[in-house]
Amino acid sequence: MPIITRHLTIRMQGHSQIENISDSIRRCLSETSLQAGIITIFVKHTTASVMIFEDEPGLRADTKTLWDRLIPEDPAWQHNARNPGEDNGHSHLRGQLQRQSLTIPFADKQLPLGTWQEIGLIDFDTRARSREIVVQIMGE
Amino acid sequence: MPIITRHLTIRMQGHSQIENISDSIRRCLSETSLQAGIITIFVKHTTASVMIFEDEPGLRADTKTLWDRLIPEDPAWQHNARNPGEDNGHSHLRGQLQRQSLTIPFADKQLPLGTWQEIGLIDFDTRARSREIVVQIMGE
Amino acid sequence: MPIITRHLTIRMQGHSQIENISDSIRRCLSETSLQAGIITIFVKHTTASVMIFEDEPGLRADTKTLWDRLIPEDPAWQHNARNPGEDNGHSHLRGQLQRQSLTIPFADKQLPLGTWQEIGLIDFDTRARSREIVVQIMGE
Repeated sequence: MPIITRHLTIRMQGHSQIENISDSIRRCLSETSLQAGIITIFVKHTTASVMIFEDEPGLRADTKTLWDRLIPEDPAWQHNARNPGEDNGHSHLRGQLQRQSLTIPFADKQLPLGTWQEIGLIDFDTRARSREIVVQIMGE
Repeated sequence: MPIITRHLTIRMQGHSQIENISDSIRRCLSETSLQAGIITIFVKHTTASVMIFEDEPGLRADTKTLWDRLIPEDPAWQHNARNPGEDNGHSHLRGQLQRQSLTIPFADKQLPLGTWQEIGLIDFDTRARSREIVVQIMGE
Repeated sequence: MPIITRHLTIRMQGHSQIENISDSIRRCLSETSLQAGIITIFVKHTTASVMIFEDEPGLRADTKTLWDRLIPEDPAWQHNARNPGEDNGHSHLRGQLQRQSLTIPFADKQLPLGTWQEIGLIDFDTRARSREIVVQIMGE
């Protein structure tokens, strides 16, 4: 069974910015000849996550509002207080909860995404960074 | 390696209603002849999620309470404020966090679920809807 | 395609204690001869979870603080109020949200973990317990 591993590098701005990576993931799949199997998307960072979302400006704003409420930026996080120069304790906690791995089954060479589903990379860090993603496709 | 893809449609009521889909998933597995591999359960919606839970009336009530506290229904969510007729901004944010994909490894034709583990579909939307789930089984 | 299933038992203390299981997972992988594929880590409990985290004392403290704020221990959770002797309603709700399954793709016999990424088992229960984890490796 073929196993294809691809690497994506994406420039992100942090502060809960979301990048829609659906087309990049679809391209990885279409470059293989596989009919059915699974795609695993893995973010190689602790302060960024991958998720399913509806790509709509209101929800992009709401996502930022939500994280600022649930896990606010705060110098009192011990990650910041104990490590001089660190200010991204909240970014780690957000990434931990939103997670770094997403597995999607495919068939007939198509991702089964629903009408409103898009794949998003969300960056919780406090400054712009390049982010690395592993996309692995396994199937027949 | 065989890859079997099944589709389930489940009528849901929204408002954090949970449907226990463990038996449906077990049936999908038992209808194959596979001994070991992985099952991937993928919900084709942004306002519903799949999760592991203990199916106990108290926890069903607590789950509803928790989501109403963490991410309350609110006309002020920008998804609602900017899009006339929308009232489910909170449903999207809940679905995003609780996620749409669950992968479970199996062996000896059995899911390895612990004594209290059940597989739940949770619907965060504001009205009753039919929900589609992809169940893909890959193994030997 | 080989499918290898391993079982780990880990003694945990509860109260959001985190155990770094990266080396145990790497050992499971190195004991196979597989070059590429996926590892699925599945926790067989409802009140413990698996996650990616940076293993730093400040973040370990922050994780405990975060969960005590987001989903506090409370006799009023219906799981506790309706079931005499139960005190871990919050543990179930935390486990449900943090989740029990993590899939990581590997290639060249290596996990693709980023510099700061570690694999953590987090135990939300209210007393010490032994926890069981299934580690399944599928690949070529």
